[in-house]
Amino acid sequence: MAAPLANIFTLGALDLTRLRTFYDRLGWPVIFSDEDFVAYGLRGAIVCLFPVDKLAADGRTQPEQTRSGMRFTIGILVDSAQEVDAVAEQVRAAGGRITKEPVNAEFFEGRSCYFADPEDNYFEIVWATPDNPVLVAARRAAT
Amino acid sequence: MAAPLANIFTLGALDLTRLRTFYDRLGWPVIFSDEDFVAYGLRGAIVCLFPVDKLAADGRTQPEQTRSGMRFTIGILVDSAQEVDAVAEQVRAAGGRITKEPVNAEFFEGRSCYFADPEDNYFEIVWATPDNPVLVAARRAAT
Repeated sequence: MAAPLANIFTLGALDLTRLRTFYDRLGWPVIFSDEDFVAYGLRGAIVCLFPVDKLAADGRTQPEQTRSGMRFTIGILVDSAQEVDAVAEQVRAAGGRITKEPVNAEFFEGRSCYFADPEDNYFEIVWATPDNPVLVAARRAAT
Repeated sequence: MAAPLANIFTLGALDLTRLRTFYDRLGWPVIFSDEDFVAYGLRGAIVCLFPVDKLAADGRTQPEQTRSGMRFTIGILVDSAQEVDAVAEQVRAAGGRITKEPVNAEFFEGRSCYFADPEDNYFEIVWATPDNPVLVAARRAAT
């Protein structure tokens, strides 16, 4: 399975209305929605929200009900160190919980900030120098 | 924050070696790795593995230690109904746990299969008819 197209992230929601309100406040563009599903069209990827009970039932497994910390992150790539701080302010204004205020990154040359949505789904807002191989690949993978 | 570039998905690993072995067996191309980090370059997105303790420490929060069911999915988009079945066999051969064998999808016109990696991170292998708005957007968002 060499390099599949794998760019739809679906977050299982405990409270879809609350979660959706947060992402709508962030201003993410909705490309499709119905009563219990919403898809936001980002660059590179699509982020969807769907009730975790229905998601797990569709996958023939149990839903994870706990939300007790960080399990994964979705990286949001911006174009400058200053933009990390600016996006963090937008997140704060939308009701996001900043767990790490913007600082110079520990693991690479750049700037980093972490936030959680209302159900402990975590995002890293990140800028890195142009030689960062992961971010170069991420930009290349997106249109 | 209109349509951010948001296509790096980092899974917090309890056992990085075990998890990495699975993705290496799938044949996903590694674009960067070091002792405790690996990044797979897919189309549209990058999937990274990083110990969940270190990931949460970097984000100034607690790691989620439970792996008790489905919390999210990453969608893998293929080009035909038959390819859903073929990719499912590749996943099975690599040691992935299929929770839903390939069937005609319930929520859209197409074919769907779910599997979990060794730490209950779930993927949906999906093909849908060309009028599916989410999949059209996903293809457009990828290079």
